[in-house]
Amino acid sequence: MIKTDILIIGAGPTGLFAVFEAGLLKLKCHLIDALPQAGGQCSEIYPKKPIYDIPGFPEVLAGELVNNLMEQIKPFQPGFTLGERADSIEKLEDGSFIVTTNKGTEHHAPIVAIAGGLGSFEPRKPQLENLSKFEDNGVAYMIKDPEVYRNKKVLIAGGGDSALDWSIFLADVASEVTLVHRRNEFRGALDSVEKVQELKNLGKINLITPAEIIELKGEERLSSVVVQKTDSKETVQVDVDNFIPLFGLSPKLGPIADWGLEIEKNAIKVDNALDYQTNIPGVYAIGDVNTYPGKLKLILCGFHEATLMCQSAYQRIFPDKKYVMKYTTVGGVEGFDGSKKEAPKAVVKSID
Amino acid sequence: MIKTDILIIGAGPTGLFAVFEAGLLKLKCHLIDALPQAGGQCSEIYPKKPIYDIPGFPEVLAGELVNNLMEQIKPFQPGFTLGERADSIEKLEDGSFIVTTNKGTEHHAPIVAIAGGLGSFEPRKPQLENLSKFEDNGVAYMIKDPEVYRNKKVLIAGGGDSALDWSIFLADVASEVTLVHRRNEFRGALDSVEKVQELKNLGKINLITPAEIIELKGEERLSSVVVQKTDSKETVQVDVDNFIPLFGLSPKLGPIADWGLEIEKNAIKVDNALDYQTNIPGVYAIGDVNTYPGKLKLILCGFHEATLMCQSAYQRIFPDKKYVMKYTTVGGVEGFDGSKKEAPKAVVKSID
Ligand SMILES: Cc1cc2nc3c(=O)[nH]c(=O)nc-3n(C[C@H](O)[C@H](O)[C@H](O)COP(=O)(O)OP(=O)(O)OC[C@H]3O[C@@H](n4cnc5c(N)ncnc54)[C@H](O)[C@@H]3O)c2cc1C
Ligand SMILES: Cc1cc2nc3c(=O)[nH]c(=O)nc-3n(C[C@H](O)[C@H](O)[C@H](O)COP(=O)(O)OP(=O)(O)OC[C@H]3O[C@@H](n4cnc5c(N)ncnc54)[C@H](O)[C@@H]3O)c2cc1C
Repeated sequence: MIKTDILIIGAGPTGLFAVFEAGLLKLKCHLIDALPQAGGQCSEIYPKKPIYDIPGFPEVLAGELVNNLMEQIKPFQPGFTLGERADSIEKLEDGSFIVTTNKGTEHHAPIVAIAGGLGSFEPRKPQLENLSKFEDNGVAYMIKDPEVYRNKKVLIAGGGDSALDWSIFLADVASEVTLVHRRNEFRGALDSVEKVQELKNLGKINLITPAEIIELKGEERLSSVVVQKTDSKETVQVDVDNFIPLFGLSPKLGPIADWGLEIEKNAIKVDNALDYQTNIPGVYAIGDVNTYPGKLKLILCGFHEATLMCQSAYQRIFPDKKYVMKYTTVGGVEGFDGSKKEAPKAVVKSID
Repeated sequence: MIKTDILIIGAGPTGLFAVFEAGLLKLKCHLIDALPQAGGQCSEIYPKKPIYDIPGFPEVLAGELVNNLMEQIKPFQPGFTLGERADSIEKLEDGSFIVTTNKGTEHHAPIVAIAGGLGSFEPRKPQLENLSKFEDNGVAYMIKDPEVYRNKKVLIAGGGDSALDWSIFLADVASEVTLVHRRNEFRGALDSVEKVQELKNLGKINLITPAEIIELKGEERLSSVVVQKTDSKETVQVDVDNFIPLFGLSPKLGPIADWGLEIEKNAIKVDNALDYQTNIPGVYAIGDVNTYPGKLKLILCGFHEATLMCQSAYQRIFPDKKYVMKYTTVGGVEGFDGSKKEAPKAVVKSID
């Protein structure tokens, strides 16, 4: 059982910044995310695109913003349960919560902050018989740890940035990379498309287009994939260790919708006049996942909401303590890892 | 008469970021600030100190943050009335406002956003007969344009960062710089104290400590200052063109307190459940200057409040238009100066 002060569901920018604000209050956080990496939409959908409306950044790549946030929260040593979806919540008698994931991992905390964005990112799956049988037995929809594919024969399907970028990355890791797409045209960053062209020319990526996967074969584990060329209807059987269909991930509010929270327009209603708490005391909703009059689904709004949520959480956890806010510039930042950042002190020094 | 869409009182971080959010909505802004420069507390009180809780910046100097914000809002060409205090507000029949400063400058806008922080920064003045007579006739409490002091004889009084830093700066501009402080010890950044020591040794700064100014002399304009050494009581008359007492600026809510706004704990009450509007429709209060349940006087909160305020202002100005928000990453940023920033488009390109 993982224990923490604030359990954060969703490791997007909002959830990540909450770790920082909680840390200033000496509260520890643990984050759960269905994705294999932190960063939410920024990492999954547009890591290489610029954002222009983060205050203080005339321009910042979404991926850079996430890296900066990870750096900012490092002193507060957040825990992560990645690649798992928070599926159920149970309120204990003492008012604390147990949240369990689809893989059975249990988390216990007095406060739950849902920072679930547009929902848990779930893969779009191809329509194939046997698909579920091979899940985790050769078939995966996200790449958690690329080392798993070292010296393996990998077949990737898809025509967007993920398919391009992972084909490029795995060309150096796997023993064989095959990329299958139902069109000849790929849609992505120009340099990614050009790099795949180059790797194909060098024989480092085996490209089959336009084509579709029509069958998966294997006993316990996947052993080969049957690919059909769209024009000639010709089929070819490719021996593989892994099949990774990268057809995009789409967010679904999913099981959270059944937690007894007030839902409106696919988002969780919160008390924006105070602390972004939901109708369940001790459960907050911050960032894209919440709704209230005037709500804007913007990153900078999630930062504010996370900050006010942490203050309220502190009061719930320590009802008798009076918290006196100190500016970070004045009080510095003391990490749980023993690190300490502080502004250089003014000196008092005579001149003679 | 200066005309604009949103008249912002206070050019601190909150007011500055409001320009950006208004700009995205194609609304023009003009800012009034009592200080000679933008940046509010960040510029005036701690420009060289690090802030640790701006989201996405593990560390940023307050002055850097202001520079970044100025860069970010540049495409939206804000107007500035600096060094003047907004003193009175008048509501016209059409619901728009005229705001007039202590120097008589008039501003006309349908929306007023008060981003006045802890108040208008007002100088602490020394107790001296004749002081007000020489104001703007040789005596100044803030330095608006250092060029005014070129080849002039300047006497600065004070023992903090401002006194140190301006003495250093003016040593290269003025023909003579005298620094008077009532103690031998100065309080400031180590390198500033050391630099003043060095300039004193080089004869570029004339230092008189511990000492106090006891008299100002001159006909129309100031012509000399009488300084008394604290220990010996000995006096010396220094011929000067300018006397700049830098005893610190302290914020005062000031005349805004009499505008008919609901005030609580020296701050303006707003509707935080919606749009940070005050009890006067069309007048908003954002950033440190406002108060509501759970309010935190933090920069990141001002950013959020500014953003929601702009949305509401837009609806007031264009009650019939339906605004559809576009992410900056998707829609780009179109400046009023004709500039355009946008994310590189994905290509659709075949690989063969
Ligand atoms: C193309 C694009 C461009 C954008 N441009 C801008 C812009 O310019 N400016 C701006 O401010 N915003 C922009 N946005 C929106 C911005 O990305 C979101 O506002 C932001 O990501 C919201 O952050 P969040 O942390 O609230 O949620 P998200 O980033 O959505 O993260 C939520 C995370 O929670 C996880 N999750 C949800 N439910 C569960 C569960 N049950 N179990 C486990 N994990 C779960 C999800 O997998 C996800 O990783 C853009 C979005 C897109 C798609
Ligand atoms: C030493 C110190 C350290 C700090 N550290 C942090 C930190 O680590 N993190 C953090 O988030 N915050 C910190 N703060 C607080 C932060 O600086 C403020 O929250 C922020 O400056 C508020 O921004 P603002 O734009 O709302 O107001 P301000 O920065 O106060 O700006 C308001 C401006 O309005 C002007 N004004 C007011 N009334 C009038 C008028 N009638 N006419 C003309 N002009 C007027 C004032 O002159 C001023 O320039 C710190 C503050 C101090 C002093």
